[in-house]
Amino acid sequence: MELKSALDQLGLLQKKLYAYQTASSSLYLDGVTVAPKDTSEGRGVALGILAGESQKLMTAPETGELLAFLADQKENLSFVEQRQVEELKRSYDRLSRIPADEYMDYAMLTNEASDVWHRAKESSDFTLFAPVLEKLVAYNRKFAGYYDSSKKPYDALLDEYERGADMAFLDTFFETVRERLVPLIHAIGEKPQIDDSFLHLHYPVDIQRKFSDYLMEVMELDRGHCTIGETEHPFTLEFNNKDVRITTNYKEDNVVDSMYSVIHEGGHAKYELGIRDDLQYTCLTGGVSMGVHESQSRFYENIIGRSLPFVKAIFPKMQEFFPEQLKHVTAEQMYRAVNKVQPSLIRTEADELTYSLHVMVRYEIEKQLIDGSLEVKDIPEVWNRLYKKYLGVDVPDDRRGCLQDSHWSGGSFGYFPSYALGSAYGAQMLCNMEKDFPVWDEVRAGKLTGVSAWLKEKVHQYGSLLTPGEIVKNACGDFDPTVYTDYLTEKYNKLYDL
Amino acid sequence: MELKSALDQLGLLQKKLYAYQTASSSLYLDGVTVAPKDTSEGRGVALGILAGESQKLMTAPETGELLAFLADQKENLSFVEQRQVEELKRSYDRLSRIPADEYMDYAMLTNEASDVWHRAKESSDFTLFAPVLEKLVAYNRKFAGYYDSSKKPYDALLDEYERGADMAFLDTFFETVRERLVPLIHAIGEKPQIDDSFLHLHYPVDIQRKFSDYLMEVMELDRGHCTIGETEHPFTLEFNNKDVRITTNYKEDNVVDSMYSVIHEGGHAKYELGIRDDLQYTCLTGGVSMGVHESQSRFYENIIGRSLPFVKAIFPKMQEFFPEQLKHVTAEQMYRAVNKVQPSLIRTEADELTYSLHVMVRYEIEKQLIDGSLEVKDIPEVWNRLYKKYLGVDVPDDRRGCLQDSHWSGGSFGYFPSYALGSAYGAQMLCNMEKDFPVWDEVRAGKLTGVSAWLKEKVHQYGSLLTPGEIVKNACGDFDPTVYTDYLTEKYNKLYDL
Repeated sequence: MELKSALDQLGLLQKKLYAYQTASSSLYLDGVTVAPKDTSEGRGVALGILAGESQKLMTAPETGELLAFLADQKENLSFVEQRQVEELKRSYDRLSRIPADEYMDYAMLTNEASDVWHRAKESSDFTLFAPVLEKLVAYNRKFAGYYDSSKKPYDALLDEYERGADMAFLDTFFETVRERLVPLIHAIGEKPQIDDSFLHLHYPVDIQRKFSDYLMEVMELDRGHCTIGETEHPFTLEFNNKDVRITTNYKEDNVVDSMYSVIHEGGHAKYELGIRDDLQYTCLTGGVSMGVHESQSRFYENIIGRSLPFVKAIFPKMQEFFPEQLKHVTAEQMYRAVNKVQPSLIRTEADELTYSLHVMVRYEIEKQLIDGSLEVKDIPEVWNRLYKKYLGVDVPDDRRGCLQDSHWSGGSFGYFPSYALGSAYGAQMLCNMEKDFPVWDEVRAGKLTGVSAWLKEKVHQYGSLLTPGEIVKNACGDFDPTVYTDYLTEKYNKLYDL
Repeated sequence: MELKSALDQLGLLQKKLYAYQTASSSLYLDGVTVAPKDTSEGRGVALGILAGESQKLMTAPETGELLAFLADQKENLSFVEQRQVEELKRSYDRLSRIPADEYMDYAMLTNEASDVWHRAKESSDFTLFAPVLEKLVAYNRKFAGYYDSSKKPYDALLDEYERGADMAFLDTFFETVRERLVPLIHAIGEKPQIDDSFLHLHYPVDIQRKFSDYLMEVMELDRGHCTIGETEHPFTLEFNNKDVRITTNYKEDNVVDSMYSVIHEGGHAKYELGIRDDLQYTCLTGGVSMGVHESQSRFYENIIGRSLPFVKAIFPKMQEFFPEQLKHVTAEQMYRAVNKVQPSLIRTEADELTYSLHVMVRYEIEKQLIDGSLEVKDIPEVWNRLYKKYLGVDVPDDRRGCLQDSHWSGGSFGYFPSYALGSAYGAQMLCNMEKDFPVWDEVRAGKLTGVSAWLKEKVHQYGSLLTPGEIVKNACGDFDPTVYTDYLTEKYNKLYDL
């Protein structure tokens, strides 16, 4: 094999993977936005074929030979090429170890599980979901061995979502979270509650849409490369660094629900739009991990978006959009309202402070599920006990308890912790950012240019060129969860006068 | 090879082709609807890869062997399987004869041509477009030889869009059209014109959207399988027989523009939605030809939609939507207004009567272009001369003349005639339909159930299982263009009191 021709093949391989991914994303986007409702079958057939072709390509013997050849030529490759080979080889090795029939069975199982979970959630009946969840757990335990047999199964799964994170690391992290935040939350529960009733007046959707346009402007999201749509659950979908879509969901009786969705998804979008051009159509484009992605979205949403300077900066405009509703409200009151702490049942609706405790419950349950010390049938009991212990809330039913998230039905075990890690990364990024330039002076002036430039330089541009660990080190320094808990403690002590 | 396994492979081959087609359609739809505006590059990369994979699959030696094996086993195949093998083999043979480098060059050329044409049209400068059009003509002449070297080049091209149609057939057809319709149009020009000024009052778009919903109900289009969107140019896009999208374009100063777009595209949609389930995900689904497709859309649009019984049936509802605008208008006046004959410059805006003359101009030019008797540089002169001769209009510039359509820039030569054939097929279908049941009694009652059932039985259900010729024979009997010209003559004699 000639090096030149091997590199051409490497480029083509990645373009094909990009094309299959883009096609699948497009079909997915269509399905959750404009497609007529009774049309999932035909899309499913196409998506199945595309996934199969992509998997076939990634496990083809020629792909293996190509990657082995290029891995041997490492010293003749550029850094970008080396990293492409490294990442693709990792995928190839992992996928090749999964027997084809198990891969197919698993794909069919997750497909079925999604339906079963929907039905179970609707009827709030965990026993419906339990049998299929047992199978999913068993598969994931097995797959963990294929991924990396030298690791404990849950460590191998965690590594899939946040390379380098393992139980030792997460146990320490969550211990800090538990020790510092649980008492804080309990203390807040003793204090007079913040009044946020004005957030729940009538906020017409068409005005909220215009308000979203304004927020995208504030975030300097180029509408030529990023649109905003509407779906039941807000999300960000990236096709490439010139084409990202975010969605939100408007509630007429809650003006900040969509507002913070837009800022959160906008943060994901900024990440994808900030990736270097030379990584496009390769395996190195796209955010590097879930944790780093969430660090960006939650940075914009909470650290910036729920800060006093930011709320003060945008409040006059907000009053222009909603003059009647906000007539008697001050920026300070708005700031307090959007930071109200209220332990609750649903993770996706949780406030900044209690959010990581929702994640911790899931982490503890997953850990035991995968190591076999917890049986599937006992999940509801453990779930409800932990929610009472950490958040002080009684879970009335499984719909609002252990059936609320779709992740397990999609076969994702080890995904949840990245949500909490992201917030912790963000707090450290803020510390370093503050050393580099006067962050809050800019934010106070309604400008996010400096913030975005800093994040682009430290995080966004790299896509997946560096590992999550390298990027976190680059932007945060050594990981230290107390920076995160200190940030929260200081903020909420002030807010609740503790 | 085992027959059973060969048939499995045949099924999989077609599912893959379906998946590539579906993916490309999804990306296309996204591009013309919700995608941010500066995102075509990334979609182009994905579309190029998908087209390449599809082409590679259709010209792979294994595909050729599979099809040859199955063709030999014809007596052991069901009729549906026989037809699949026949159609795929035809595509395989044709594609295999095109050298790969020419195929690639041509794909790049049409891609470039589309841009050039847009610019040329904008600046109304044919000389900009002429050089690339010359190349396109040369390629098509060459490809015609690959398609079928036993035929004259233009006959081979015509056969691509309407199997079985050739110049001998079309010359006769257009001769009838010319002899019967040109004098009729000239005679109408001498008569007092119909007043349609009330169509051009202010018709708010949001009410027009609701009116579209009503029209889709009248057409019995199941919204669970068919949505309506908005694009610059209305179109129908079919994913499969359970998933069809139509689009329209609203003009505030023209209520019937979108109305007849909806009915026209709705006719295309009815066709696709009426195809048999057992043809899905195979090469036999999808309407059989452009001509037959247009016969369905124009049947609903003109023969039904512009009939007096239909206009009378929907007019009360129309008045409910637009009470102010239509206060002093009668159903009869509306009928006359939507049938106003006005020779004009733009094909897509032409009325029912003059439409086929626009097509005839293009047919005559294409015929000469491909046989070499007309040079590209002389197109504007011939175009303008023929418009004057047939339609009596002076073409003021190329933008409204020979640069108005995108077809040639996309490499389509031989496509236009199918537009006119469709109308002629429709008139004969009406004749036969009237023999089978009291069509107009139903239409008068605002019901299209019988019409749809008849078209589904005679045309829709077959998809591409039968040839265009067989379907036309099935629904029309022997082709006789005077049925079409008689239908028009009778209708417009009455309307213009001739």
